[in-house]
Amino acid sequence: MNRSILEAFEPIFYPKSVAVIGASTELAKFGNIILSALMEIGYGGKIYPVNPEGGEIKGFPVYQSLKEIPGEVDLAILTIPAPLVSGALEECLRQGVKGVEILTSGFKETGNREGRRMEEEISRIARRGIRILGPNCFGIYCPESGLTILPGQNFSRETGPVGFLSQSGGLCVDLGQIAKGLGIRFSKMVSYGNGCDVAACDLLEYFYADEKTRIIAGYVEGVEDGPRLLRILKENKGKKPVILWKAGLTATGSRAVMSHTGSMGGSEAVWNAALQQAGVIQVSSAEELVDTIYAFLYLADYVGPRVSVMGGGGAISVAASDSLERLGLSVPLFSQPILQKLKTSFPPVGNSLRNPVDLGNPMIPPSMLRKVMEAAGEDEGIDTLIVIQILFYILFQVRHRLRMDDRPLSQFSFQPELLKACEEVRAKYQKPIIMVLPDITTDACMIDLESEWRRERDVYQTAGFPVFKTLDRAARALGHCIAFQRAKLD
Amino acid sequence: MNRSILEAFEPIFYPKSVAVIGASTELAKFGNIILSALMEIGYGGKIYPVNPEGGEIKGFPVYQSLKEIPGEVDLAILTIPAPLVSGALEECLRQGVKGVEILTSGFKETGNREGRRMEEEISRIARRGIRILGPNCFGIYCPESGLTILPGQNFSRETGPVGFLSQSGGLCVDLGQIAKGLGIRFSKMVSYGNGCDVAACDLLEYFYADEKTRIIAGYVEGVEDGPRLLRILKENKGKKPVILWKAGLTATGSRAVMSHTGSMGGSEAVWNAALQQAGVIQVSSAEELVDTIYAFLYLADYVGPRVSVMGGGGAISVAASDSLERLGLSVPLFSQPILQKLKTSFPPVGNSLRNPVDLGNPMIPPSMLRKVMEAAGEDEGIDTLIVIQILFYILFQVRHRLRMDDRPLSQFSFQPELLKACEEVRAKYQKPIIMVLPDITTDACMIDLESEWRRERDVYQTAGFPVFKTLDRAARALGHCIAFQRAKLD
Repeated sequence: MNRSILEAFEPIFYPKSVAVIGASTELAKFGNIILSALMEIGYGGKIYPVNPEGGEIKGFPVYQSLKEIPGEVDLAILTIPAPLVSGALEECLRQGVKGVEILTSGFKETGNREGRRMEEEISRIARRGIRILGPNCFGIYCPESGLTILPGQNFSRETGPVGFLSQSGGLCVDLGQIAKGLGIRFSKMVSYGNGCDVAACDLLEYFYADEKTRIIAGYVEGVEDGPRLLRILKENKGKKPVILWKAGLTATGSRAVMSHTGSMGGSEAVWNAALQQAGVIQVSSAEELVDTIYAFLYLADYVGPRVSVMGGGGAISVAASDSLERLGLSVPLFSQPILQKLKTSFPPVGNSLRNPVDLGNPMIPPSMLRKVMEAAGEDEGIDTLIVIQILFYILFQVRHRLRMDDRPLSQFSFQPELLKACEEVRAKYQKPIIMVLPDITTDACMIDLESEWRRERDVYQTAGFPVFKTLDRAARALGHCIAFQRAKLD
Repeated sequence: MNRSILEAFEPIFYPKSVAVIGASTELAKFGNIILSALMEIGYGGKIYPVNPEGGEIKGFPVYQSLKEIPGEVDLAILTIPAPLVSGALEECLRQGVKGVEILTSGFKETGNREGRRMEEEISRIARRGIRILGPNCFGIYCPESGLTILPGQNFSRETGPVGFLSQSGGLCVDLGQIAKGLGIRFSKMVSYGNGCDVAACDLLEYFYADEKTRIIAGYVEGVEDGPRLLRILKENKGKKPVILWKAGLTATGSRAVMSHTGSMGGSEAVWNAALQQAGVIQVSSAEELVDTIYAFLYLADYVGPRVSVMGGGGAISVAASDSLERLGLSVPLFSQPILQKLKTSFPPVGNSLRNPVDLGNPMIPPSMLRKVMEAAGEDEGIDTLIVIQILFYILFQVRHRLRMDDRPLSQFSFQPELLKACEEVRAKYQKPIIMVLPDITTDACMIDLESEWRRERDVYQTAGFPVFKTLDRAARALGHCIAFQRAKLD
């Protein structure tokens, strides 16, 4: 384990005190928003606002300069204009500040000479003994210490196994929100912007060393030192999954990278080959990034590529077969004895039992679905179960047929019984089960189905079963988990 | 125009009377569900339940046989067991019934000899002068005449330009629900199951001839006569967009086709090449099918591949560039004069204006966004505008900052002003505008954002602006529209 990197980042991720340089009473200023965010999320250390005008902000006395602060400062958050940054950094050095987040933009990403010059200057200051995140970043979210990014005041305070590094602050803000309902929890999330000092390589080394991080994910546009990045990845291959969105690989994307974070994108073919060799799980959209983190979180190590898909309605069997096969997964037929046993429980027509199992009707009682789950559990040719339930039919249609349109949807749920079946089959056969609950209503007036959807998702998730909205998304995420396991064996 | 096919299908799609053969008082039986569905959707013709037991169902007198019905029968819906079907068809022939839907399964899709034999028998009966849909299908939805599929009792009664043909009944049921909130309306939707008589080729010819159908879409597993299908497509190439999901193209998918509708999938490479040559827009999931129909519905003919993307937050510029370029679209830089003019309205740092336009902050006032829209409208190098707004930030975060968490979200919407800007820019420059409203909250407790999302979507949609949840989905659908225009010119 890399002790030195853990020690170097300790005061930055777990600061006992934070100075906000550029703290402001103006609501729209970064120096106000970040202060509010730290207070709202409940950062427990000391907060020192700094502004030459002095006074008071949100009940804190404002220090006119860093040196007036009575105690030590572990982390300084800079929100002052770009031309003032290097001066403030010199003072941070003098006062023994351990680390700095520079939220200010207007550096290398402007593409102009003055911006580049200022950024080179702060890089030089960093080498004199202070770690710097940014500039042009949103900072650090660390639920354990109560640090948060701009604006991340409502992020979860629960800590978790995901370490996320990102050149885009906006993506961090989005991911923090998306993560909440999915039970994705972070050890740390770090927006490093232009990455003039701390960047992808250091953070990757940190996350490999950090015992609290079990899954590493990242969004990277340009890389400061490609060979070093690949060396770190290869040296640690298979230790922890690394899910990476390497953006800016197309010609237009690469051009956009320059004006976003001032770095260079790179050649798509070269990056794809190198990252694959290094065992990295590559994704190419926010949706795929989230789905993949989610799958690694909920699926255990014994997930395998031979899948049984079961459900009813909506061309399930054919579509499932196509999409799984395209992702390198297989849908093998059940073995003959298993199939024969299964056939005794179902009518001879109106279904297809060989795997994929299409029970014809989307309103399948859990007792019937359990029989298929048992078969898939027992069959030695099957590794992973995917259960598809279209809630609309079970909830709305059943309620409607019973002429009980005024009752809440949750009263018609098959969930308690199906959840029990999932838990028992998983315990008995030790095979992972993935839920797919497609979402087929779009009306503004049918919002109660979406409410019930989220409620059911939460229950399955809490029991350790991942829930996806489409089979394609489930299959893609599962495919990534399996690719990681295969890469470990290479 | 193919008059004869229109005439042949007239009494089937617009029947003056329908007999339900196998009508039942048992709630769970098809013969009960389809009768309820016809009544609930408000079919306006005569309904004749038929069952040898006689009596009364839902207020209708039940006829013991077809020949006892006092008037003519245009369409007969069969829900009786498979072995009784051929006898009933003979009686339909004798009584001059024009068309038949056979909902019953247990024919070719069983894979056994008896099933195949029974299906061949009904094919032979069809050739003696009666059109047959099915067996193993869900029938016809035609909002104009009030026919609906099983179970489609809550489908829209509004008619529209989309003709949909499908080998899967389940997909029809799903699509009818999904379509509702998206403003997708159908001329006809036809589930033809095993397709022993009427199948993809006939329906395609009908939809080309039908003046009420402007967009043709379909889900096809096996094709009864591949050369004929391709000939029809080529002869009509460019007349109407044909969006086709040809499933069962992988080895496993092809195997599943056999037990779903008893037909054969086919070779992926051969189909892909042939369909592309025929100008077909190929899709490969329900999501892509819906998104593409939606895009053809809302985007006018003058849509073009040179896109301007504008918004703020979430790595918008880089991700947008990558995903558009991968789909064959371009994101050209604004011309110098346009860019210079734009620069005068925005601060010199914290944004990227060259296109994609990333305004840095996701809370962009509509007045600022309008300036970018004007620039993209004016720039002759831009065909299509994509506007990204992350509603979460505008609604939740603005409300939170103003300390008004108890007010409804709609009070904080930028929509009235942004909609006005969209309408004015579209009118002035005659360029299509696509809205992307990403959805980044997942909490069960934040369901009010999803409600507000749907409300805003409905307003944009009503004004003719399509709304997508992700940029990737918007770009994929736009790419299909452009490919169709290009194919027309081939």
